[in-house]
Amino acid sequence: MIERLCVIGVGLMGASIAKAARAMGLCRQIIGLDEDRENLLKAKALGVIDGAAETIQEAVKGADFVVIATPVGSIRPILAALRPVWSQDAIYTDVGSTKAYVVEAAKAIFGRIPPNLVPGHPIAGAEKSGVEAACADLYQGRRVILTPLPNTSKRALQKVGSFWRSLGAQVSEMEVDHHDHVLAATSHLPHVIAYALVHMLGRKDEKQEIFKYAAGGFKDFTRIASSDPTMWRDICRANRAEISALLEQFKKELDTVIALLQEEAFEELYDFFCGAKSARQRFLDQFER
Amino acid sequence: MIERLCVIGVGLMGASIAKAARAMGLCRQIIGLDEDRENLLKAKALGVIDGAAETIQEAVKGADFVVIATPVGSIRPILAALRPVWSQDAIYTDVGSTKAYVVEAAKAIFGRIPPNLVPGHPIAGAEKSGVEAACADLYQGRRVILTPLPNTSKRALQKVGSFWRSLGAQVSEMEVDHHDHVLAATSHLPHVIAYALVHMLGRKDEKQEIFKYAAGGFKDFTRIASSDPTMWRDICRANRAEISALLEQFKKELDTVIALLQEEAFEELYDFFCGAKSARQRFLDQFER
Repeated sequence: MIERLCVIGVGLMGASIAKAARAMGLCRQIIGLDEDRENLLKAKALGVIDGAAETIQEAVKGADFVVIATPVGSIRPILAALRPVWSQDAIYTDVGSTKAYVVEAAKAIFGRIPPNLVPGHPIAGAEKSGVEAACADLYQGRRVILTPLPNTSKRALQKVGSFWRSLGAQVSEMEVDHHDHVLAATSHLPHVIAYALVHMLGRKDEKQEIFKYAAGGFKDFTRIASSDPTMWRDICRANRAEISALLEQFKKELDTVIALLQEEAFEELYDFFCGAKSARQRFLDQFER
Repeated sequence: MIERLCVIGVGLMGASIAKAARAMGLCRQIIGLDEDRENLLKAKALGVIDGAAETIQEAVKGADFVVIATPVGSIRPILAALRPVWSQDAIYTDVGSTKAYVVEAAKAIFGRIPPNLVPGHPIAGAEKSGVEAACADLYQGRRVILTPLPNTSKRALQKVGSFWRSLGAQVSEMEVDHHDHVLAATSHLPHVIAYALVHMLGRKDEKQEIFKYAAGGFKDFTRIASSDPTMWRDICRANRAEISALLEQFKKELDTVIALLQEEAFEELYDFFCGAKSARQRFLDQFER
């Protein structure tokens, strides 16, 4: 049982953690901190957290489990603010979408990553944000990737893993760089592509109505382009090398299609589409298992 | 009231037209034709059509309203087969996703587009196909674009428009080329991008598990990559110039993002994402109206 859970950042992710931990009876008390004061007070008013802290010192005082649930770009200043009040007895984890950046930040601030800080990433989310979008079952059936380092405490790793499992998640462990590589492909690249497409078509729509004639497929395809720009700026900053490399690769993939169109190689194009369709089926078979 | 409705191609689109026309009491009898014999007999067994024709001659015999609901690549041979049995008294329309190709095919076969053939395109569909995926409300609230030519008969245009309105659709008229340009942007380009992305990631997934760690956002984003490859090969063939041009434009958009990442211009990247997010909101406001 966690005596005092501290959630830094009570947006969609953090507030859902708080709600789920409460629903599962994992903790006696939840203290929240958020730089958006209005969101923080809303979290308190909604009963998502028991106490709304004014400062980071106040937030972590007496906490035995601390979750940093802010956009990845805020994790470095938060770790810096935590350093003077860092407790050897507490367990710390985060939900940052890129892990090398968090590990580098921790190394820069602490000299090495503290053994009781377990870098983590729940693969869940939505294009909505803020405490009001939070729900207790956000992590149900979702994957959480932990990226422990050689000096990570076994006890801390075990505690963080069991915390997430209690919230309904499936927990995996992965190397830091492998995590960032995999997520760049399955999450960061698709988001950037969606933003870029809607950005381009938005300009077209200003000159001549086109959105009027877009259908449900377009709605689904562009859903992720409604994601939080701050969060995605931070992810792009933190994982820019992987994302750039994949964008270059993707441009080559588009060149393949353009070449097939120009050569009128429509049977090869058909095979290309079939390959994609069956790859997606492979994804679905895993996703829905 | 239509005496005899002939639906050529009783897949998702054609069978949904048949079901909806029946549900709305628009016709006395429905004759279907499909090169997939099994699908055709299923349509008959399910009562979607009253008669399953063996040949195109048999299918259109006595029909006063003919809908060609096949992938766009089959429309040309179908028009060629229809020419000897073309009736001046019947109304003809199609559901092809690109219109210049259909108009060119008709001109090549008939010398000029017959006044009683009204090119049309219902903007509806799903990644499923076949008669079993059909439903009577597929066109409810959807847009249908008709692209009449200067010599299109006013009566035929009016009949086809009112047919679609009876099926619950919102009917617009548009120039042929404008249709193909708009749909290339909102439909063809997104489909090609989705296929290309899944194709690329499918190869990565074979070397190292990545799909396992993909989330719901990826599922939505790639849904259209499960669309029928035959249909999309045909669309790419029929509208290849527009699609190629947009792919080149999209590569430039990706270059903009790559440049922002390399210059570490993260505030500009933030503005780029905000621009996309608000453009999508503009789309949603129209879509959900």
